[in-house]
Amino acid sequence: MRAVVKTAAERGAEYVTDAGDPKAAEGSVVLEVGAASLCGTDRELYEWTPSAQAFNLDLPVVLGHEGAGTVVEVGPGVSGLRVGDRVALESHLACGQCFPCRTGDAHTCERTRIVGMHIDGVFAQYAAVPEDICVKLPAGLPLESGALLEAAGVAVHAVQRAGYAVAGRAVVVSGAGPVGLVVVKLALLMGAAYVVAVDPNPFRRAQAERLGAIALQPDGGVVERCRELTGRRGGFDVAFECSGAPGTLTTLFEAVRREATVVTVGHPSRPAEVDIAAYINKKGITLRGIFGRRLWETWEQSLLLLDSGRLELDWLITHRMKLSQIDEAVGLLTGDACKVLLLPGLG
Amino acid sequence: MRAVVKTAAERGAEYVTDAGDPKAAEGSVVLEVGAASLCGTDRELYEWTPSAQAFNLDLPVVLGHEGAGTVVEVGPGVSGLRVGDRVALESHLACGQCFPCRTGDAHTCERTRIVGMHIDGVFAQYAAVPEDICVKLPAGLPLESGALLEAAGVAVHAVQRAGYAVAGRAVVVSGAGPVGLVVVKLALLMGAAYVVAVDPNPFRRAQAERLGAIALQPDGGVVERCRELTGRRGGFDVAFECSGAPGTLTTLFEAVRREATVVTVGHPSRPAEVDIAAYINKKGITLRGIFGRRLWETWEQSLLLLDSGRLELDWLITHRMKLSQIDEAVGLLTGDACKVLLLPGLG
Amino acid sequence: MRAVVKTAAERGAEYVTDAGDPKAAEGSVVLEVGAASLCGTDRELYEWTPSAQAFNLDLPVVLGHEGAGTVVEVGPGVSGLRVGDRVALESHLACGQCFPCRTGDAHTCERTRIVGMHIDGVFAQYAAVPEDICVKLPAGLPLESGALLEAAGVAVHAVQRAGYAVAGRAVVVSGAGPVGLVVVKLALLMGAAYVVAVDPNPFRRAQAERLGAIALQPDGGVVERCRELTGRRGGFDVAFECSGAPGTLTTLFEAVRREATVVTVGHPSRPAEVDIAAYINKKGITLRGIFGRRLWETWEQSLLLLDSGRLELDWLITHRMKLSQIDEAVGLLTGDACKVLLLPGLG
Amino acid sequence: MRAVVKTAAERGAEYVTDAGDPKAAEGSVVLEVGAASLCGTDRELYEWTPSAQAFNLDLPVVLGHEGAGTVVEVGPGVSGLRVGDRVALESHLACGQCFPCRTGDAHTCERTRIVGMHIDGVFAQYAAVPEDICVKLPAGLPLESGALLEAAGVAVHAVQRAGYAVAGRAVVVSGAGPVGLVVVKLALLMGAAYVVAVDPNPFRRAQAERLGAIALQPDGGVVERCRELTGRRGGFDVAFECSGAPGTLTTLFEAVRREATVVTVGHPSRPAEVDIAAYINKKGITLRGIFGRRLWETWEQSLLLLDSGRLELDWLITHRMKLSQIDEAVGLLTGDACKVLLLPGLG
Repeated sequence: MRAVVKTAAERGAEYVTDAGDPKAAEGSVVLEVGAASLCGTDRELYEWTPSAQAFNLDLPVVLGHEGAGTVVEVGPGVSGLRVGDRVALESHLACGQCFPCRTGDAHTCERTRIVGMHIDGVFAQYAAVPEDICVKLPAGLPLESGALLEAAGVAVHAVQRAGYAVAGRAVVVSGAGPVGLVVVKLALLMGAAYVVAVDPNPFRRAQAERLGAIALQPDGGVVERCRELTGRRGGFDVAFECSGAPGTLTTLFEAVRREATVVTVGHPSRPAEVDIAAYINKKGITLRGIFGRRLWETWEQSLLLLDSGRLELDWLITHRMKLSQIDEAVGLLTGDACKVLLLPGLG
Repeated sequence: MRAVVKTAAERGAEYVTDAGDPKAAEGSVVLEVGAASLCGTDRELYEWTPSAQAFNLDLPVVLGHEGAGTVVEVGPGVSGLRVGDRVALESHLACGQCFPCRTGDAHTCERTRIVGMHIDGVFAQYAAVPEDICVKLPAGLPLESGALLEAAGVAVHAVQRAGYAVAGRAVVVSGAGPVGLVVVKLALLMGAAYVVAVDPNPFRRAQAERLGAIALQPDGGVVERCRELTGRRGGFDVAFECSGAPGTLTTLFEAVRREATVVTVGHPSRPAEVDIAAYINKKGITLRGIFGRRLWETWEQSLLLLDSGRLELDWLITHRMKLSQIDEAVGLLTGDACKVLLLPGLG
Repeated sequence: MRAVVKTAAERGAEYVTDAGDPKAAEGSVVLEVGAASLCGTDRELYEWTPSAQAFNLDLPVVLGHEGAGTVVEVGPGVSGLRVGDRVALESHLACGQCFPCRTGDAHTCERTRIVGMHIDGVFAQYAAVPEDICVKLPAGLPLESGALLEAAGVAVHAVQRAGYAVAGRAVVVSGAGPVGLVVVKLALLMGAAYVVAVDPNPFRRAQAERLGAIALQPDGGVVERCRELTGRRGGFDVAFECSGAPGTLTTLFEAVRREATVVTVGHPSRPAEVDIAAYINKKGITLRGIFGRRLWETWEQSLLLLDSGRLELDWLITHRMKLSQIDEAVGLLTGDACKVLLLPGLG
Repeated sequence: MRAVVKTAAERGAEYVTDAGDPKAAEGSVVLEVGAASLCGTDRELYEWTPSAQAFNLDLPVVLGHEGAGTVVEVGPGVSGLRVGDRVALESHLACGQCFPCRTGDAHTCERTRIVGMHIDGVFAQYAAVPEDICVKLPAGLPLESGALLEAAGVAVHAVQRAGYAVAGRAVVVSGAGPVGLVVVKLALLMGAAYVVAVDPNPFRRAQAERLGAIALQPDGGVVERCRELTGRRGGFDVAFECSGAPGTLTTLFEAVRREATVVTVGHPSRPAEVDIAAYINKKGITLRGIFGRRLWETWEQSLLLLDSGRLELDWLITHRMKLSQIDEAVGLLTGDACKVLLLPGLG
């Protein structure tokens, strides 16, 4: 089959046309991949950055961890899926045995393996995946939308981590990439009084504005604007750091009011400086972050919103490409793009 | 001045034109009442029901606890208000000294006194009220809207009591009177996936539908509809009982999923039967209720939504009347009306 | 093998000496039962009360759902247990697929099956049980203590359900049976300022007093004593209803302060009357209950306390009997007994 | 009267014998100070460190913000205190008007003034203080114990900030000064499975051990010990950083398990480095801190524990001195001392 494979511990990835067809092992199914989506991590894996190297890939491996497809083969011991079922993929395989897994926090599993890193991924015509990580899609939801759910789930998780404290509140979001934009979208859907989105890229700011946010440049008076909009409240109620830039935290600490919550979503490449005395103690800010999606509260939340028609995600898609265009697709991620899909059906 | 006065412990209320003008005592201000609003409790006071009698009124008393006006006189010791300020009224005077008051729960103050019951109220041209219960209105907000904030605040409090668990959730509201309708409005504003409103009155159901809810009669298959809409979720996520009818709780317990929250807002006139084993233990439902508004989180929340333009309340107003029409106004409350205002300026 | 079997849908249970030896099926192990413990539910099953009938037993069935033993045979597909491992049993088999199971609330699984009701239980020399419900015991913990963990876990869950709000708080417990007594024990271990235990049985009150509680009769001025001990606080902070007597709730609602939490543990046989207006709305009480144990937070909490030596449970055991003494053992439960063990090794 | 006065913006403090006697203004009372206690901040004020200078003192000012005394004069407008009442002092005067004050978070008031910095403090024979910050002591509690409540309250607040998640949990405390030791004491009182206390000072470690903690040096294998004690739990459940040393956070992040809470109590003099990706995101740690005490939940909690006899604080006192010994008293704070009292009655 056709696939994008990382074969060596170095920059790049190979488009191949003769990858072996996957088989459905015990507890697994084979999917015909309808749509896959690129994530910032895919770019890191391609560029072979230190962060990427830290994932300890099982090479060679088919890349791609965001995707949706149709079940074409069912392995022994699979009880909940049938040929023809349409599913999206959770990309994290939790072990089910460690303390976090046993106490409702499988998203922080100590032995997580990741699709497209430790088992073959979805930048391919077919993928063999454990039944456990398949989430059935509502009737009528296109596979392209399904392929966005892994990334959108990060945003849903961020909102859940803040205790849904976007509803009726003033919300500032740093970083308007795909995840940041879905946070913006959710905040507005959930009745945020104000949403401020901060990003240096004009294309992204324009997208945030189209959703209804006030879009600002990082040096565009973010703190002043947040304070002005909230008056005696003294600042915004909650902040989401989705850019991964370590320096942005201080701006968010200044932009929020006392007793606010700051949720970190982006993974900065180096430690951030945090003024504990000023922000955590005296200002009473709570700092918390997320990794992946809650299993399975996040998926259940996303599906409820999709199924009821309240949430729609297709506006995230800016490009649709072939598997063979992987080099070009990776290149788009740092430019004027939001979600770039790879559609194996295109070639 | 003109005023509506409860003079005796019996049915009725008197419209008088010679009530004495109030004076601003220490820590108090005098308001020129711009708009007052009737509440179900006003009807109870008028009809002199057992519930009304239980309030231990200080008779005679000017009725009316929902209102907004303009400061026309400032008493000694008042530091935060000036003549000309436009304010809405919190109707509960908390003591500030009891345990709930000392620990952030002044809405359950042990010695609450209520405007229009224990001090003269706002069904009058002027009212003298403590500075503490005056909430300054945002510039541009009409006094009529301000007069709705006390009642709307009950709905905001209900949502707060549910931990804002309307955002992204399936929400059922029993009772589509003014408070129930604002709960419906807030749930939709805050991104509820589904909102079902239950009321026997077709006028009220029509109002709920205009807001975007699915409106059902109490015997109209509420449980079945809630389960059908949520599929394997097994029921709705949160319920608000705003009708005060004791029998509705069991319907809500059946309509929600396991581990749901049911918030009681209406005050039933007799105890309700609760199947502890089936609903509270095995189904894991959390039952909690509210009284009044949180001081002052509820007001701060309402003002943020109003000031940002996300929430608007004027659709609640169905009638505007003179003080002298008090008998007719009370009569409207059980019919096809939502909020009935008394406008002292009309006469 | 020797076992206690419920053979027919009528009063009683049979002690037999020729029950077939269980085999370890896929994913299961066979335990040599070291100790089993009787629960109030076992008495209901024996007496064949309406509550018992509602469990829809798969007859005939070996009774007994509280027990601990040693693995003597391991079935295919078992990965975490070996012959010789010592384990306690969780009695609830959650389905793993329903909404509560998928979102961290498997204790309210919609399709729970129960050991000793729907699969053969532990009142026997051997029991075949799924690996999933086996909890490995810390080295050195006797099997007799292990057999107490299912029941003690109910008390631990109750404390968890109250958000651990026994620490530093005033705690009232209604019902001083085994579960109520462990709540008392935990509350004192966790620094409760006061613990009041209420029970009509002098034997149980004496046990509660030995643990350090103030023990009162139900008509012994519970409300007055709670208010007197807490002064201006206005009542106790949290209440646990462990008796299952429907009438006790009102006493607890009166004994607690405003904004208190009341946790129901006992399963009353009929609905309770709850004055929503007075207690849930105006007093701000939160009412919530439990069923079983949280999977697996409750077990993890219990094991941490046992393993560290902070909690010890043997004081619960008042009687040790043979399987053949089942009739006598059941009879003890309504008298001056706390935990009655059945030790298959005795005969 | 005799008093310790900070007269100039430079190192030192003056013991004077001719300070003017304070008078009870509107809403205030005069206390005869029975006992005052030194805090690390007093040493900073004495040494005139940059942190101290940042407090913007109103010089000259009588120092001392931890104290208890007897009311000897009552000003006009005081309604809750009488001559002879024995009170402890909250040291923070919240404004009552800002957003945090209005929403239950007065401990993060935007305009807090502090006793002994912005109004004359308690290192004196008499002090005039607002009624609002006086907390009546239970009968029988010595004034010396009362003088410890401000500092002990910081520890109580820390435990409250962690949601009382010391009960039944594994708890690590960095810094065994007075506040850290009270956290240790509370954790043990509230049933912590394990308490590890970390401090470089052998005197302090010995105090922690006497309370029942496992006391370790900062480089004494803290992470390894915490992991070893908790086994598959993977680390401690909650950490309290009470030392103010910026470098200790990383040790705590490593010593706790996934989804743990770290509460910062000490105020580091410079920003700390926090690896957001590793600890806040992937490990799921929640970071929050405290300032002062919750008004008035913290005091209510402390008084309940003291009044019930469960908590006792006198073991904190290692030295009792005269006001005139201020230089010597300050010098003790960095050595083998815990709480140093100044007793104006001694001279």
